[in-house]
Amino acid sequence: MNKQNKKGLLIVNTGDGKGKSTAAFGTILRAWGRGFRICVVQFIKAETGQWGEIKAAKKLGIEWITTGDGFTWTSKDMDETIARARHGWEIAKEKIASGNYDLIVLDEFTYTLAYNWLDTTEVLDWLRLHRPSELHLIITGRSAPEALIAQADLVTEMALVKHPYEQGIVAQAGIEF
Amino acid sequence: MNKQNKKGLLIVNTGDGKGKSTAAFGTILRAWGRGFRICVVQFIKAETGQWGEIKAAKKLGIEWITTGDGFTWTSKDMDETIARARHGWEIAKEKIASGNYDLIVLDEFTYTLAYNWLDTTEVLDWLRLHRPSELHLIITGRSAPEALIAQADLVTEMALVKHPYEQGIVAQAGIEF
Repeated sequence: MNKQNKKGLLIVNTGDGKGKSTAAFGTILRAWGRGFRICVVQFIKAETGQWGEIKAAKKLGIEWITTGDGFTWTSKDMDETIARARHGWEIAKEKIASGNYDLIVLDEFTYTLAYNWLDTTEVLDWLRLHRPSELHLIITGRSAPEALIAQADLVTEMALVKHPYEQGIVAQAGIEF
Repeated sequence: MNKQNKKGLLIVNTGDGKGKSTAAFGTILRAWGRGFRICVVQFIKAETGQWGEIKAAKKLGIEWITTGDGFTWTSKDMDETIARARHGWEIAKEKIASGNYDLIVLDEFTYTLAYNWLDTTEVLDWLRLHRPSELHLIITGRSAPEALIAQADLVTEMALVKHPYEQGIVAQAGIEF
């Protein structure tokens, strides 16, 4: 591919199904295979979580920053959740503007917009001004705001067709987390 | 998780959107992070393709078998395409029945069923009898047959909302391949 065709994509994986974050991790694997410089900023999920993907990222030498205090719907202190989300966005802005990466993933970031912890217009304006033109940025999570979808280059909706929970099967380590 | 709750899942990623194979690669990354024994059998895609995920798999020591001769809709010799698909399934059966893996991915496998290169009923019956109970099996591709969806534990449909091709942006190395 010649240089002229290189363009950083703004990618959104949304919807109620599985595979939003997982597809982002797959893209990380693909990008890592090509020697990309990669950073993940993870919102919402607990710092203490020993998720398979974090173990993998450590082994691969991928920068992985967790900023959440666990799933919001179990959060007892909403102010702290909001403060952590905003702190996460400050970190993300620094990483994005640095020019040190080829791919950055803002995992579960849509919630910070959907719940109005961050102002969607401000976030999108900032990205328009400061995202390096060759940086690929992937944003995952349910309920992606319309304005984000409008600004994105590639949007996929993951829809749930069938889930093992319905059949009483618990989440499987290494597959679902 | 206690042993009793451990169950190999039959997972299907289908639909017309991006992220079917990519979500499978993300699951591979997650599973690899937990030390799973992993094998990928890739149908349809060309052996000579230097895809980012194949580079990554090599680096990670993941077994990756390519069996296709390129995308079917560019295939000049359909008999060879069919023969390769059937040969791929023979390899897949051997891997599945071996008991040597925790996770096997049959990438782009749905096409072999949708185009009747393999008999869907025979394939599903074989899987019911021979898939080890703790083996996770992921099948990806468009047009997953109804019978496969019925037998699966977890099915996600990836729907295209917006694609950069529409805006004249070419596929980006490390992100889309």
